[in-house]
Amino acid sequence: MIFLKNDYSLGACPKVMNALVETNLNLSDGYGTDEYCREGADYIRELIKCPTAHVHFLMAGTQTNQTALAAFLMRPHHSVISADTGHICVHETGAIEATGHKVIHVATPQGKLTPEDIERVIEFHEDEHYVLPKAVYISNSTETGLIYKKDELLALREACDKHDLILYMDGARLAMALTCQDNDVKFEDLPKIADAFYIGGTKCGALFGEALVIVNDKLKEDMRYLIKQRGAMLAKGRLLGVQFNALLKDNTYLELGAHANKMAKILVDGIKAKGYEFAIPPQTNLLFPYFPPELIEKLSKSVMFEPYHLKKDGMKTIRLVTSWGTTEREVEEFLNLI
Amino acid sequence: MIFLKNDYSLGACPKVMNALVETNLNLSDGYGTDEYCREGADYIRELIKCPTAHVHFLMAGTQTNQTALAAFLMRPHHSVISADTGHICVHETGAIEATGHKVIHVATPQGKLTPEDIERVIEFHEDEHYVLPKAVYISNSTETGLIYKKDELLALREACDKHDLILYMDGARLAMALTCQDNDVKFEDLPKIADAFYIGGTKCGALFGEALVIVNDKLKEDMRYLIKQRGAMLAKGRLLGVQFNALLKDNTYLELGAHANKMAKILVDGIKAKGYEFAIPPQTNLLFPYFPPELIEKLSKSVMFEPYHLKKDGMKTIRLVTSWGTTEREVEEFLNLI
Amino acid sequence: MIFLKNDYSLGACPKVMNALVETNLNLSDGYGTDEYCREGADYIRELIKCPTAHVHFLMAGTQTNQTALAAFLMRPHHSVISADTGHICVHETGAIEATGHKVIHVATPQGKLTPEDIERVIEFHEDEHYVLPKAVYISNSTETGLIYKKDELLALREACDKHDLILYMDGARLAMALTCQDNDVKFEDLPKIADAFYIGGTKCGALFGEALVIVNDKLKEDMRYLIKQRGAMLAKGRLLGVQFNALLKDNTYLELGAHANKMAKILVDGIKAKGYEFAIPPQTNLLFPYFPPELIEKLSKSVMFEPYHLKKDGMKTIRLVTSWGTTEREVEEFLNLI
Amino acid sequence: MIFLKNDYSLGACPKVMNALVETNLNLSDGYGTDEYCREGADYIRELIKCPTAHVHFLMAGTQTNQTALAAFLMRPHHSVISADTGHICVHETGAIEATGHKVIHVATPQGKLTPEDIERVIEFHEDEHYVLPKAVYISNSTETGLIYKKDELLALREACDKHDLILYMDGARLAMALTCQDNDVKFEDLPKIADAFYIGGTKCGALFGEALVIVNDKLKEDMRYLIKQRGAMLAKGRLLGVQFNALLKDNTYLELGAHANKMAKILVDGIKAKGYEFAIPPQTNLLFPYFPPELIEKLSKSVMFEPYHLKKDGMKTIRLVTSWGTTEREVEEFLNLI
Repeated sequence: MIFLKNDYSLGACPKVMNALVETNLNLSDGYGTDEYCREGADYIRELIKCPTAHVHFLMAGTQTNQTALAAFLMRPHHSVISADTGHICVHETGAIEATGHKVIHVATPQGKLTPEDIERVIEFHEDEHYVLPKAVYISNSTETGLIYKKDELLALREACDKHDLILYMDGARLAMALTCQDNDVKFEDLPKIADAFYIGGTKCGALFGEALVIVNDKLKEDMRYLIKQRGAMLAKGRLLGVQFNALLKDNTYLELGAHANKMAKILVDGIKAKGYEFAIPPQTNLLFPYFPPELIEKLSKSVMFEPYHLKKDGMKTIRLVTSWGTTEREVEEFLNLI
Repeated sequence: MIFLKNDYSLGACPKVMNALVETNLNLSDGYGTDEYCREGADYIRELIKCPTAHVHFLMAGTQTNQTALAAFLMRPHHSVISADTGHICVHETGAIEATGHKVIHVATPQGKLTPEDIERVIEFHEDEHYVLPKAVYISNSTETGLIYKKDELLALREACDKHDLILYMDGARLAMALTCQDNDVKFEDLPKIADAFYIGGTKCGALFGEALVIVNDKLKEDMRYLIKQRGAMLAKGRLLGVQFNALLKDNTYLELGAHANKMAKILVDGIKAKGYEFAIPPQTNLLFPYFPPELIEKLSKSVMFEPYHLKKDGMKTIRLVTSWGTTEREVEEFLNLI
Repeated sequence: MIFLKNDYSLGACPKVMNALVETNLNLSDGYGTDEYCREGADYIRELIKCPTAHVHFLMAGTQTNQTALAAFLMRPHHSVISADTGHICVHETGAIEATGHKVIHVATPQGKLTPEDIERVIEFHEDEHYVLPKAVYISNSTETGLIYKKDELLALREACDKHDLILYMDGARLAMALTCQDNDVKFEDLPKIADAFYIGGTKCGALFGEALVIVNDKLKEDMRYLIKQRGAMLAKGRLLGVQFNALLKDNTYLELGAHANKMAKILVDGIKAKGYEFAIPPQTNLLFPYFPPELIEKLSKSVMFEPYHLKKDGMKTIRLVTSWGTTEREVEEFLNLI
Repeated sequence: MIFLKNDYSLGACPKVMNALVETNLNLSDGYGTDEYCREGADYIRELIKCPTAHVHFLMAGTQTNQTALAAFLMRPHHSVISADTGHICVHETGAIEATGHKVIHVATPQGKLTPEDIERVIEFHEDEHYVLPKAVYISNSTETGLIYKKDELLALREACDKHDLILYMDGARLAMALTCQDNDVKFEDLPKIADAFYIGGTKCGALFGEALVIVNDKLKEDMRYLIKQRGAMLAKGRLLGVQFNALLKDNTYLELGAHANKMAKILVDGIKAKGYEFAIPPQTNLLFPYFPPELIEKLSKSVMFEPYHLKKDGMKTIRLVTSWGTTEREVEEFLNLI
């Protein structure tokens, strides 16, 4: 079977796995207070050129979003604005609401939030009979495979500043966003854009783990309490430091992202060459082509992929996902099938 | 000033106030275990012809919605579906989310939910990565002044049965709904329609208080624990029993609702006669006429009302509300102004 | 039956009831934004000599504790310290925990908290694996009928300042505390002692209602959001302002408290004269005498009271409660029975 | 340095690490729906001789306790009883309370709960003004290193049955409990004792991970929703299945536990031989010897350990912990130091 189903089924990239094996029997302090986590945090601060950032390593994406937003939405009436395709809106089983906070869904054409969306939400929530919008959630790249350009991000930043909103970026697929051919954002731009963000490991070469980076001083206090309270503090915390050291150094992380995008690009060119269109303009490693139902039926016999809900002129969409582990052979075999 | 701003600013209707004064120095057991509450509960069971219903008296509307839904959504992943104009969606400062549950907003043209809306929500929430829809919230009459007809309610009931959903009806303005000229629902129909509902006192003649009626056996257990935990158990609980006895007996409650509707009808006829249209078809005591901005400006000098967000052809809407205390003179004076 | 069961079964004192009747049909803005609430708040600020205090009127005691502590414990890991007899510990069905915060129970001999208790709690909670103590809850008078003297309160204040803790005082029976013969605390001392406190109406002459007073600037922000979110914002908010105006002016509130204490004093003297002892030294309107089981059995035929769990030498305790409505005749009849 | 500080700092035991490396690049379904997790669950059902049990693999201990109890305490007023030394009481930063539920702390002499403790709690919580005890939390072995014998567990089971309480066992150190020389409990006894329990991996040979076993049918429903909502569903879920397969097969898990206990036994014998006493009778791999302060000072230079708060006759306690990785040489070196 050709695997184009997701970017999180494969294990760790070899560098990460080797680092875990090599450090396996080292003894170190628990709960993220070890030297590997310190080293990883230092390296990330260097990478993003923000010496005052706080870095916390967590285990998984939903956990990171839940822990971060439960921490940043400091009062019970604070709410977070998100595109209605946002991971926290639909795919986290109400994890944010479970911490007591409303997620304000914004309908968007393709999953990207704009300053105008924020303005409309602020205007609507006029007094204490409504929740108080206090944060904005974006994912980059988005769940629809799109990226935010630097000027789009700075415009969101401006809207957030205007309305005293925290800007939080979910970087589950940050490696793919930063290596997208349309991208003009660098690691070092992130602290100027987001109050906090996470560098996703799970989908970009780690066995598991996400690095939460807090830039805004007001959000730093007592974060370890909140991590522990959410059950998100790993006893052998060094496992996370070890992985991020291996991933981020020597540019491995971005190389893995670039590979996923490269495999996606071959797919896109091939699919277009066969005359098919895309429901969402392809930018990164998530692709949503329109195919005729018969083709989808045929593909399902030799390709692992997921259906997607958009339809047009008798055509349906499927979701194709490439990863750091996708091979050119797989991609070519897929193209031969269509 | 002509008061058409809301239906909750006036105090209690004379019968209710007299009953409170007469019983003021009676000693009785606390927390709703007294004879007045028992009598009120018995009377409600008789009224709705449902001898097995449980009745709890609470202090206020948001409190009742929050307490009821926190009780009925029994597991943390359970969520409630509502029209996006629903009181729990927008005007309760995230009270439901504060108990950990997501409210699923459904965009509706005019604030009424349909079985098709429910079907779409169920279809979308396909597995454990999504919250599990478990209840449907409707208000009757709605926040837009509309009522549900009996067949509409039975169709919602059927959709709920099909998908194992609880149907909960917010009856803040039940008196107006049941006495609307288009209405064909009786008190005794309610237990066949809703798993639980509340008979609103605050907006229909009481000083304060709402009577929560639980029909579905599965929702009855331990309700007093949940009321107490939400801070919703009044020490002098009998105040609520006393008021509902006074309100419901001799048909007072429905008479008050009918009066509000009657005053609204005069307004509607007069407004139409002057050539103005309504943004939402007028049915009960909430009216949303389109007026030119100059007229609205003029009205604001001698009428208390609230603005409303809908606009059309240079016209804006305001919200006019009649109540049991609105007088024909007030209504006529208003019509003379337009 | 002689009624010595509680201090919340009677309705409102005549002044309060008259004020409610007189203002019943006045129209005013909703949700506590009316002139009566403003007047009440102004009067309270004057009474406590704290012109910057914020005052919010809520409906009931558990609701006030829950709303206040959910607001003041600003982060999810913040917890509140309480004597284990405290109302929030045992008699509120976990209302504080339902907002996500731990209540740290402290075993005390008779229900009063000391600075040493606070020190021990702080020492024990050493790092982020523990909750962070952030507030101290005391009730004055306590659930055991005791009062805190001014020096005791100032010592608690000092301990709180030392450890950056909020001091919150539950004043459900503040009228009885401030009129206790052993008391040396005045209304105007309260802002120097507590960051926030409430003046209890329900047990001291109101039909219902508590006045939450916030002294500490840091706790004031957005309080109306939190009140609304907890379902604690009364539509006809003026009912609370009207009552507190009637209660507090002309010293009525303290006179009612003094009466309850005076009736209790007659009981105490009479019970002691008959040779009985008290399990907890009697100070205010809650009395815990040791009686032989036969006497308790006999009393239960003509007196309404509650059992209490303490025992000694074959004797058992009961709880006797006087109120603003207790009469000298009732008290004398009781003494004749023992 | 001799490492006797904890049993979670070391990485995975070689068998587990090898299994992770071997399966690293296998593609499989995500979120625990893969063949390794199925195989692991099947094996656990076989091991405990309970073919109907549900097994879920989670990432960490606090996460497992929080997820399980948030699921099992089905209504907001349900609470859990625990010895006040229990992990959920003190070392999880209020994780249970953060889900809205009260933890009822029971003072115990040495960290073990008895049926009498349960009876007292039940008696105290008499009506809806109190939380409703609905579950009992025990850890085996306890945080104090003690184990429950089979008859003690069956007595707790009986008390739970009597009062309709769920019995939940935290098995963070189950390997050490089941291989303690005083133990008479087998894997297959657990389903007769507990409604749910977890087999701890983190402290017994895994890189990370705990296997939650649900025996009671009533607790099984929708568990995957709750796991996802708590952020506890690992994308590469198979990592957990792979580890538990490696750990549990060929008896490795119990051998690792037995080794930790054996190393502890040598320590105990040696410490006793030198004339020192233990604050808590040593049974498993957590030891609490009384040492003179000078000795503790000396040890701190070449041994990693943690202080413990108990004191006696000028002696203080420290906590010594052995693990599957502790060597006889380390143990002997330690004994030479005292």
